[in-house]
Amino acid sequence: MSTPRMRVVASVPGGIGNFGPGLDVLGCALTGARDEVMAEWSQTAGVTIIDAGHPQLPRDPAKNTASIAAAAVMRTAAERGVPLTQPGIAITIKKGLPLSGGQGGSAASAVAGAVAANALIWPTDSGLAVNDLLACALAGEEAVAGRHLDNIAPSLLGGIVLVRSLDPIEVIKIQVPAGLRIVLATPAQQLTTTRARSVLPTEVLRSIVVHQLAQVAAVIAACNSEDLALLGRAMDDRIAEPARTPLLPGFADAKKSALDAGALGVSISGAGPTAFALCDSDAIATKIGSAMQSAYAHAGLDCTVRTCEVDSQGAIVRDA
Amino acid sequence: MSTPRMRVVASVPGGIGNFGPGLDVLGCALTGARDEVMAEWSQTAGVTIIDAGHPQLPRDPAKNTASIAAAAVMRTAAERGVPLTQPGIAITIKKGLPLSGGQGGSAASAVAGAVAANALIWPTDSGLAVNDLLACALAGEEAVAGRHLDNIAPSLLGGIVLVRSLDPIEVIKIQVPAGLRIVLATPAQQLTTTRARSVLPTEVLRSIVVHQLAQVAAVIAACNSEDLALLGRAMDDRIAEPARTPLLPGFADAKKSALDAGALGVSISGAGPTAFALCDSDAIATKIGSAMQSAYAHAGLDCTVRTCEVDSQGAIVRDA
Repeated sequence: MSTPRMRVVASVPGGIGNFGPGLDVLGCALTGARDEVMAEWSQTAGVTIIDAGHPQLPRDPAKNTASIAAAAVMRTAAERGVPLTQPGIAITIKKGLPLSGGQGGSAASAVAGAVAANALIWPTDSGLAVNDLLACALAGEEAVAGRHLDNIAPSLLGGIVLVRSLDPIEVIKIQVPAGLRIVLATPAQQLTTTRARSVLPTEVLRSIVVHQLAQVAAVIAACNSEDLALLGRAMDDRIAEPARTPLLPGFADAKKSALDAGALGVSISGAGPTAFALCDSDAIATKIGSAMQSAYAHAGLDCTVRTCEVDSQGAIVRDA
Repeated sequence: MSTPRMRVVASVPGGIGNFGPGLDVLGCALTGARDEVMAEWSQTAGVTIIDAGHPQLPRDPAKNTASIAAAAVMRTAAERGVPLTQPGIAITIKKGLPLSGGQGGSAASAVAGAVAANALIWPTDSGLAVNDLLACALAGEEAVAGRHLDNIAPSLLGGIVLVRSLDPIEVIKIQVPAGLRIVLATPAQQLTTTRARSVLPTEVLRSIVVHQLAQVAAVIAACNSEDLALLGRAMDDRIAEPARTPLLPGFADAKKSALDAGALGVSISGAGPTAFALCDSDAIATKIGSAMQSAYAHAGLDCTVRTCEVDSQGAIVRDA
């Protein structure tokens, strides 16, 4: 019998949810900033939080996305009669992703909580099936950001992921086109997902629906044919972006500036305020970053920019 | 200088518009029945109709989809100063596709009119660019069935085609998955496109929109990965199909029967009344056809069925 792990770390990328026209259904993981959850066995039953990773994040395990996800994994293990080394799991969260930034931070923490608990409980095999892990992470995400997997799935699996169905869960990995660079511009503004979701329309005009259907289909076609120009043209979201633009000072100008600087397409990352721009080279990415920073400065907002690629790894586990 | 052609025939496949969740944006061409337009030079200016191909089709060139499309090609030629052999074109239409059947007959005739006129005017090269031909055919389709290219584009180009944009026109050919069989079941009911469009909702609930976005994206992913089971699951149209089902006696039962007989997915072809079922073998296609015929018989409707594949050729031209 192998020695049980006493402590593991799950490291999980953030990324873009609501990728272009793919409201609630399309997301991608990005290289760079990651959230980490260290999980260790504890004599205290259930999931406890040693460190929530940020003063604004709840230390109540019933309210924290990472602990809720970890608890869902423990519950699934219990339902299946899997023996636990100790009665509880204590987690330590390290936030690399911004809070309420639109970079998939809550999803990354939820995935990290689920993956860390999974690795602790099943040290010798991969543990829960992918869809079970997604369901556990979704329980965490749902508590803070709504019931959708478009950040969760790419954070777990890496790459660009389409969520075809939530009940039952079905996610599809989409080919990542070579050469894609993504500039993230995060203005110094916090916008809660709750607020950003509240402005989404309850109903959508059929003409807009038809347009959006064509764009989201074109995104998949563009990825498969590695046609970055088409991918850029298809980033034409007419549902969420027009509704959220009024909540995002500087975004409209930043978008225009990015396109003028050579971006192939620009839209809002997740629920904002982060904006993303697609391009095909590091040189153009640098120009786009400067142009977006200037545009946000005109709106009186500091803005951090970073250039990334699509992360292909997703969640990774290491011993701690 | 080469001899001008005096007479040509364009032969054009029909197909499925509104392919599954792809309302107004996704269509495919099918093998089997085709519409033909013979075009010949005439001393009568403009486009005249020698034979409209069916007693119910207008002989007035201003009202017939094929002649409107041919006239649009002539107008484009005139705008570009292309000399005409004679002042007019006379067309003879041969309908292989049913009227108001939901098999893309009006689009096929429009494409045939445009392609035949194009081949007559430009005998030595391909003539108008694809997007110009699409625009001319669209002028014909628009007069009878609304402004959409989801039947027109596959009829011209063959295959499965996504219409990303109408202004400007941009269409994208999608990979056709190997082994796909399509059963068309056409109950003895005429349903005009106008009537079938009138029941479409003006606005769509956002939850339905999100579902439909996921399905149309999954259709493209399924075609690219040649995953016929996924393609079938993604044929889940929650916008047009629920609205049109009440207009289509027998459809709900025929759909259920087809799925029970092994269909991977079933929906309405174009605006109906034809229904289509996807499967992966001729043997299952035969079973599905019988099952659908029985279901329509229960509703008191005769029903013709045929099994086809995706047509890869699109419009073809021959000398007459």
